[in-house]
Amino acid sequence: MKLLRYGEKGKEKPGLLDKSGQIRDLSAHIPDLAGDALSPSSLAKIAALDPASLPAVSGKPRIGAAVGGSPKFLAIGLNYTDHANEVGLAIPTEPIVFMKANSSLCGPNDAVEKPRGSTKLDWEVEIAIIIGSRAKYISEADALNHVAGYSVCNDVSERFFQIERLGQWTKGKSHDTFGPLGPWMVTKDEIADVQKLPMWCDVNGKRCQTGSTATMIFGVKKIVSYLSEIMTLMPGDVIATGTPPGVGMGMKPPKFLNVGDVVTLGIEGLGEQRQEIVAA
Amino acid sequence: MKLLRYGEKGKEKPGLLDKSGQIRDLSAHIPDLAGDALSPSSLAKIAALDPASLPAVSGKPRIGAAVGGSPKFLAIGLNYTDHANEVGLAIPTEPIVFMKANSSLCGPNDAVEKPRGSTKLDWEVEIAIIIGSRAKYISEADALNHVAGYSVCNDVSERFFQIERLGQWTKGKSHDTFGPLGPWMVTKDEIADVQKLPMWCDVNGKRCQTGSTATMIFGVKKIVSYLSEIMTLMPGDVIATGTPPGVGMGMKPPKFLNVGDVVTLGIEGLGEQRQEIVAA
Repeated sequence: MKLLRYGEKGKEKPGLLDKSGQIRDLSAHIPDLAGDALSPSSLAKIAALDPASLPAVSGKPRIGAAVGGSPKFLAIGLNYTDHANEVGLAIPTEPIVFMKANSSLCGPNDAVEKPRGSTKLDWEVEIAIIIGSRAKYISEADALNHVAGYSVCNDVSERFFQIERLGQWTKGKSHDTFGPLGPWMVTKDEIADVQKLPMWCDVNGKRCQTGSTATMIFGVKKIVSYLSEIMTLMPGDVIATGTPPGVGMGMKPPKFLNVGDVVTLGIEGLGEQRQEIVAA
Repeated sequence: MKLLRYGEKGKEKPGLLDKSGQIRDLSAHIPDLAGDALSPSSLAKIAALDPASLPAVSGKPRIGAAVGGSPKFLAIGLNYTDHANEVGLAIPTEPIVFMKANSSLCGPNDAVEKPRGSTKLDWEVEIAIIIGSRAKYISEADALNHVAGYSVCNDVSERFFQIERLGQWTKGKSHDTFGPLGPWMVTKDEIADVQKLPMWCDVNGKRCQTGSTATMIFGVKKIVSYLSEIMTLMPGDVIATGTPPGVGMGMKPPKFLNVGDVVTLGIEGLGEQRQEIVAA
């Protein structure tokens, strides 16, 4: 299934994308695509509905972040072999974990704010894992039982804030709109092999990133199991899993985003995003 | 006012501590000490109540984290001049920011879990700021208008996870129970000078940390203003503001916590905590 949230920011309703591409309203069945609505039993109930029985949503509403009320927004750094090679860094021996503010999550096509004082605004196409049920000390074999689905995420980053202003990456990863998520959460049953998905990112129509989840150093099962050993994962938690080569910071010379630039990105089977850069 | 949350974990009710030390139930007035209930107008309404008119809570209930549903749990590193001197590090030129998982928040006297594989479990007494209203790009002069109050926090840390397992501090700061918060949120009007509060931490009854918020490098106003420039602060966000000298990692030789150890800590005017270490 492709599940989504549509409507005005902060007032999104849950919906389902049917086979014809029509959005169907799920408000009568779940309050939001969030929390307990992401559990295996809840998703099974939604899967049992006849999409044609759900109200068709007219027009072209705004699409919100693929899940609502995310307790945590986690991310894995330097998680693609080809990206590590590109920047000349050693392959990590265990996942590099950081956090983004959950207040940075936004819709897949919302404008992305360039913060005041920003000089190095960058893009990162990533596949995001969406947690469906509480997970603490779970094995890799059990990991997917706690995953509701996947989504496209742009792990927008301000490199000056992230790297040159002391301390931890959080500082350059947390501004409002630094986490476009969507257009949909695709339930895991619909993805034949999550470790074989082509992905790309363009800036102003020019291809910058080309990659595949096949070159992820730590795959989805390992990431979920590993994180569950250092914290408790909760329903609605979002985990951005790292980016393939081609970010602005890695270009020679480096290239960064300015107001008016347009970023488009996508992952096979998970949909596409488009963001215009605006001043904060 | 001293506001608090009492009752079973996950089912806490909001309460008020009256002048005699009696807990009074606030459930008829706010659903939880969380979100909008922390706004200036909500706190003004609670302040206008006659405590004697509120139901007295019998017995000695468990005390929960001082606020509920915290969207973010932020922390400032290396923020005391005497602590920086102790460990021989330069005084930071701007705040060092990291995030703890909000799932690590717990009651002030709950047992603290020693994670599996933990070898360097450490303590950090800190004053926590509790945000009362949304804050983005606010000045230092305006910062306190967005603060609901203060609380004691133990920024429990696993140094092996934090420092020796690659990447960002989040990894050693986020295990369940790594954020005892409370016993109360003391509203800011009750604190004459937040930058002059003595604080302490004992391990098994032996004094380890002695300090004062007077030696904070970046004070409360600066921290709130600074964070509001890199992310949007939300009602219920908790900000741990750094620790004075005397953590286990800084001792010669270093000293860490084991199962059965007891940590007690407190800040003048904000109350005291007590945690026993248990196996995860």
